[in-house]
Order: sequence, then structure tokens, then C-alpha cells
Amino acid sequence: MAYEQIDLAVHDRVATITLNRPDKLNAYTIRMMEELIHAFDRVDSDDEIGAVIVTGSGERAFCAGADLEMGTKAFEGAGSADSPVRADGSIDYASEAARDYGGRLTLRMFECLKPVIGAVNGAAVGIGATMLLPMDVRLACEEARIGFVFARRGIVPEAASSWFLPRIVGISAALDWTMSGRLVPAAEALGAGLLSEVVPRESLLERAQARARSYIEASAPVSVALTRQMMWRGLGMAHPMEAHRIDSRGVLARGRSGDAHEGVGAFLEKRPAQFPDRVSQDMPDFFPWWEDPRYT
Amino acid sequence: MAYEQIDLAVHDRVATITLNRPDKLNAYTIRMMEELIHAFDRVDSDDEIGAVIVTGSGERAFCAGADLEMGTKAFEGAGSADSPVRADGSIDYASEAARDYGGRLTLRMFECLKPVIGAVNGAAVGIGATMLLPMDVRLACEEARIGFVFARRGIVPEAASSWFLPRIVGISAALDWTMSGRLVPAAEALGAGLLSEVVPRESLLERAQARARSYIEASAPVSVALTRQMMWRGLGMAHPMEAHRIDSRGVLARGRSGDAHEGVGAFLEKRPAQFPDRVSQDMPDFFPWWEDPRYT
Amino acid sequence: MAYEQIDLAVHDRVATITLNRPDKLNAYTIRMMEELIHAFDRVDSDDEIGAVIVTGSGERAFCAGADLEMGTKAFEGAGSADSPVRADGSIDYASEAARDYGGRLTLRMFECLKPVIGAVNGAAVGIGATMLLPMDVRLACEEARIGFVFARRGIVPEAASSWFLPRIVGISAALDWTMSGRLVPAAEALGAGLLSEVVPRESLLERAQARARSYIEASAPVSVALTRQMMWRGLGMAHPMEAHRIDSRGVLARGRSGDAHEGVGAFLEKRPAQFPDRVSQDMPDFFPWWEDPRYT
Repeated sequence: MAYEQIDLAVHDRVATITLNRPDKLNAYTIRMMEELIHAFDRVDSDDEIGAVIVTGSGERAFCAGADLEMGTKAFEGAGSADSPVRADGSIDYASEAARDYGGRLTLRMFECLKPVIGAVNGAAVGIGATMLLPMDVRLACEEARIGFVFARRGIVPEAASSWFLPRIVGISAALDWTMSGRLVPAAEALGAGLLSEVVPRESLLERAQARARSYIEASAPVSVALTRQMMWRGLGMAHPMEAHRIDSRGVLARGRSGDAHEGVGAFLEKRPAQFPDRVSQDMPDFFPWWEDPRYT
Repeated sequence: MAYEQIDLAVHDRVATITLNRPDKLNAYTIRMMEELIHAFDRVDSDDEIGAVIVTGSGERAFCAGADLEMGTKAFEGAGSADSPVRADGSIDYASEAARDYGGRLTLRMFECLKPVIGAVNGAAVGIGATMLLPMDVRLACEEARIGFVFARRGIVPEAASSWFLPRIVGISAALDWTMSGRLVPAAEALGAGLLSEVVPRESLLERAQARARSYIEASAPVSVALTRQMMWRGLGMAHPMEAHRIDSRGVLARGRSGDAHEGVGAFLEKRPAQFPDRVSQDMPDFFPWWEDPRYT
Repeated sequence: MAYEQIDLAVHDRVATITLNRPDKLNAYTIRMMEELIHAFDRVDSDDEIGAVIVTGSGERAFCAGADLEMGTKAFEGAGSADSPVRADGSIDYASEAARDYGGRLTLRMFECLKPVIGAVNGAAVGIGATMLLPMDVRLACEEARIGFVFARRGIVPEAASSWFLPRIVGISAALDWTMSGRLVPAAEALGAGLLSEVVPRESLLERAQARARSYIEASAPVSVALTRQMMWRGLGMAHPMEAHRIDSRGVLARGRSGDAHEGVGAFLEKRPAQFPDRVSQDMPDFFPWWEDPRYT
């Protein structure tokens, strides 16, 4: 797939995905969604990639939200097989075609096996804000503003943000931001935990790369992939016993791996570890331990 | 219903509910519970009301807790059909009559379709503290103290606070406050996220009104109602797919509404939006999407 | 049971459990696990104990992680009835013997009926870090470092930490710390909410004891035991109705207890309460209200 609306570059084991429609403030389209999902598939399948940064092109916006084309797409071809709108005008909510384009992306990011770092280079509005939520760590430049503006447009927060946002910033900030639809300054987003760092614009990518390297330089890639899924999925578990089942499997399977042998050996010998296992082929036999719910 | 223990006033689309027993430090009674539930029903059914503030009368207390009458009410008429206490003295825990009076109120507030802002004008103790939890945003004056004093009285935290409190302030603060039963100063409650703002007493209502207006002035009421329920219920969802199902429905149904047409039009034309849809009659056909569990 | 690797002392109703292998940096062993679980059983069964502090011996470490013996223990006797490793080398993940030794401890601490306070006197690494998570409040000295180092050793975070950690520090910090495996300074852990206080080393135990006393001096022990379980288990509930069911039972059962009579009487008479009920024999009839999931 040749990318038209994003860019994907890999240097020193860090992939950088750039939303690349600067003249359109990197507005989100169905094409962009497809390219992003494709890029995350590449990130996951390429063992050379240890972490991924998502940023935007230009100085004005990370992503200004959905392009206007999105608004009516679901209604095009109403009554046809690939539209959720039936011939009589009613909506088939349970159809795959009814799925929000934002959620298709954020659920893919949720599944990612590499650390995902957001580098918010300007305004992040609408899907530009909600696509940040399944990222692991978010950094922003001082000028960034985050806008969950949906109620101002007459619609509702999407991209599964009602699961992510209150868990990340707490229910009060989540409600305040989404019910007002106001643009949240970077400093406020930092205080609420949406952002982990706010830095001058010229340092943004450098800081994001430092974060990325911190997950690559000393950690076993298979351990990182398992850890990312364990922590995110732990958020949805009802009882710590569910976590105990998974990490017992993890400790047993990984404890006899070449990685563990190397990791402990390197620690005892006070040298950098060279982990042999690869995400593409060495995930333990109990992975994935979940069966994801289907859209209905 | 004529209110005896609360006051309900509406100005500029903001309802203010005032606990109004200042000589009793606004202590909570069954009558006050019934009036509050009635008032929330009015708030939800009146399209003129865009947000609601809850505060207390006087300078000493927001609410000093349950009035003494509450303590024995459940045992009055023991053995009769409307008492959870059977003739032999045992308790029918599953009976509707066994339901805690605090939880009846907080579950009603949880269901509210308008933003709920707490303006804590003094001591908030016992049910005075726990009734704050299902509110969306809480502000307090500097003199306010919050006391989850239940363990000091020999009982337990009520009003479904074991669901709300650890989600709002984190498990450590929730345990520290409820196991010690101490009075938490406003500044500490601010740091822990229970409060969003602490202000001088003379500014309290003004700040609460500013918050209320921020949810009214630019947001579509039906979008706000949906958003409030999506975010609160998102907190209880196991997997982001559950949120994706709801917000896909929301984007589809709301995307073809008059509100969305107006919201996008107003944005493009850089003018204030005039949203046509009303909460009383224009909620989308998939609402409510949940079936609330019954008391058992 | 005579303790060899820990120490348990009780003064003024506060139990202090000390990990006591200072020459080994208090490294965790199966023996230490067994002694800790035994000690928590004693804490729960002894009505003289109102709260428990967990700390480490010496100035260097709280606990430096699993002793090397842990690494291969599960594989000893492979193929025998008490090993999760079958004769053909495959793993029986669902066997009781497959259970991670860290999780066995943290699930026991989760069940505890007394407040648990961590006093982190130095490095807390691996299981030394994850065993802190089911504690209610954690304090540390300024020199303390917390290391979720699992990915650096080629394994995964254990001890049910994927349930606990993202709920305590948020998903971003949880991922950052576990994917990097870096040592987190006490000040950063304080900011993220893992620690409630960071104090000079010489004040650490004194501050922990002050916390412990705050849960003992004015609160009814049975109320504290119920409250601890209600708050922790509230974190896993899907809907506030589940909390309403439990606290309705709690208010009814405790409201007619001698403790409530004494607690309200003492409050009205402005004197210290002398609560008659004991955790060993006076827990209400609906306790425990849960059926814990089994390991599978």
C-alpha cells in the first residue's frame, strides 16, 4: 500500500507515523484511517520496529478532526449492501458498515504490540483528540490544544473514547471536556494526566524519541508486547484473579525462554542484554489469551 | 410536590437545588431524599434546564449527614410488609425496603441527563459527602471539609460510594479517607481530584454558574445528555468494544440530526449554533442502550 | 510457624511485618511467601491487631526481587504431580502449581481485613515493587527507588500487577514503568500516586505508625474491615448498583449493631467511642458477599 495521507519512516528501531495533509490541518479521512491501520499492521509485523511515534505534519495541527467527507459517507449508497442505512431510511446499527471510523482505528491501536507514543504538534480536535487515547504516552508542544468538540457539532464523542477517556483523566475532567467541548490547553491536559510531558515545539520529536528508546534499549521485545496487552486489558478486568491467571502463564512461559536466560545473565554480568526472541514468531503459546468481542 | 426541605430555582437555564434546612445543618431525611429525587425528575424533564447546581443553605454546612430519624426508619414497622425486618427480627436484604436511602439518591443522580455541579458551601459529612460522588464536577469554598465518617459511627460507607469513590480519587485516598473517617480539608480533596476548584466562599456560586454555562452555551443538549451517560457508563465497561458499539450508534443517529446540521453549519459560518433538538423528545432511538440491574 | 525470613511484632495494636534477609537485600523466596501469608493470617485473626505495616530490614532495600531459587522452582520435579511441567515438557497452565508466587501473596493481601501500610525503606524491585500494590497506602524514604524491571529480565510483570498498577497510577505511568523497566525515583512515584508520602528515612516508620493509628483510634474495627473490602472490590464492579446492594446490607446490619449504638452515642456525647464488635466473631451475616474466582 502506497501511503498518500500519512508517512511512515523507521530509524534506529523507532517508527514515526506522520499524519500528512498539512494543507488540510491533517484532517482525518477514510483513506487516512485505512493507511493508519495498514501502518500499524506493518509496525506489529516488523521486528526491526521496537516502538512507534504518531505525530502530525506542519506547525498548526496534529489533526483538526474528521474531513467533511466523513459526515455523509455512511449514508452514501443508502439501501445498498454496504451501507448501514436501509432502503426505508432506518439504520442497521449492528452492521459492520455502521462502525464508526474513529473506533476502527483506536481499537486497532489498542491491539498494537509495540509501545505507541503520541507527539502532539498542534491542535488535536475531534478524532484528532480521541485517536490519542489508546496511545501509551502522549507528549505535546506548549501550543497544543485538545478539543473533544463533539457536543458543539451536535454529535457525540466517538472512537471508543467513553471507555478510554474517563480511565485516563478521571470522570470529572472527561465530562467537563466533552460536555463543554472547549479547547483544553496543553498545561491543563498535563495536569489531568492526558499528557505526560509538555515541551517546546523544537524538542517535541526528540523527547518522543527518547521515550521510544527507553522502551527499546533494555527491554525484551516479546516482554514489552505482552506487558502492553496485559496492562491495557487489566483495566477491563473485574478481579485481580484474572490478571493472576495471565501473569502466571507469562512467568512460566517466559521464565524458560531464551530471553529470560539472557536477561538474568546480562543482569548478573552487568552487561547489556541481547534478547533473542522476536515478536513475529516467539510470542508464547497462550497468546492471545483473550477473545475480543465482536461488533454487534 | 411542594418542597419543604430543599429549594429549586431556575435562572438562565441553570437549575439550583439548595438543601434547605440550615438550622439542622441541612441534615438528610427521607423527605429530603424524596424531594431531591423529584427535583432531578423535574430537571430531566424540563428542556429549559441545561444544567443543575446542588448546594446547601447557610454558611456552616453543605449537609451534615443523615438526620437521626434515618437510623431507625428501616426498623419501624418491623414484620410489616414495607419493612425489611421480618417478624422474627431477621433482615430481608433483597427487599426493596432494604435499600439504603443514600443509594436511592445517588443512583438517580447517576441517571441524570443534565450536567450536575456540586457547590460545597461548608461541611459535607456522611451522606453529605457521598451524595457528591455522582455529580460531574465539584467545587468548594476554602472552609469546606469532607468527611466519610461512617467507620467512626460504627457503620459503613453507603450511597454506592464503593463504586464511585475509588474511581474518583483512587483507591489509596478512598481507603485512607473511609478507614480513618477523618474530615478531609478542601485543599487535600482538590489534590486528590474529589474537587475541581476551591474558591473563596463569596465566589462559589458564581464559579459553579460559570461551569454550568460552559455546558450550555455552545453544546447541543441532546449531545450533552448522551455524552454524560456514555462517559459514566464507560467507567463500568469491560472492553472498549462496548463503547465502540454505543458511539457508532451515536455518530450515525446524531450525524443525521438537525443538531449536527446546525452544529457543522454554525462552525463553518463562525456563528453561534441554535440547536433544535430537545432532550424531552429527541433522544435517539437506541437510547437508553442499557438495561439497569435491579436491586436484589 | 517460626519465622526465619520475616519478623512480626505487635505494639499498640499495630503489627509490623519486616522482610528480614538484609544480607540478601530481603530477596523474596518461597519460604518468605509462606511466612508472609501466614503472618497475614495472624493479622486477620488477632483482634488485638488493628493495622499492619510492611517494611524491610536494613537501609539498602525494601526487597530486591525474587531470589534466584524462584526462577527454576516451577520446573523442579517436572513431570511429577506437583509440577506444572508435564513429562513431555509442556506446561499445565491451569494447575494450582502453575500459580505465580507473587500473585499468591498479593491476592492474600487483597483479602486482608486490616489496613495495610507499606513503608518502603529502600529499593523495591520486581516482586518487591508489585507486592506494594495491594497495600492500601504506601510511604517511602527519599532514597527509595521502585523498579518494575520484568521486561529487562525477559519476563513479564506478575503478582496480578496488571490489575492493580494501572488502577493506582493510571495506564500511562503503568505502561511507561513496566515497558521501560527503569527504576522510578520516589518523587516520581509520589507524583503518580503510587506513594502517598515521601519522608526522610529516620521518619519513615513513625509516619507509617501515625497512618496506622489514624485507622485505629476512632474507627470501629468491623467497619474498617468491611470498608476495606468494599472499596477494593468496588474497583472491579461494573455498575454502582452492585455497590448499592452491598452497602444497603452493610447499613442495615451494622446500623443495629452495638458498634453503631456506641458510635452514635459517643458522637452525641463528644467522647471517644469504645466499640464492642470484633473482626474475629462479629462480621455481619452477609460477609463475605463475594465468591472469589478460582485459579484456572
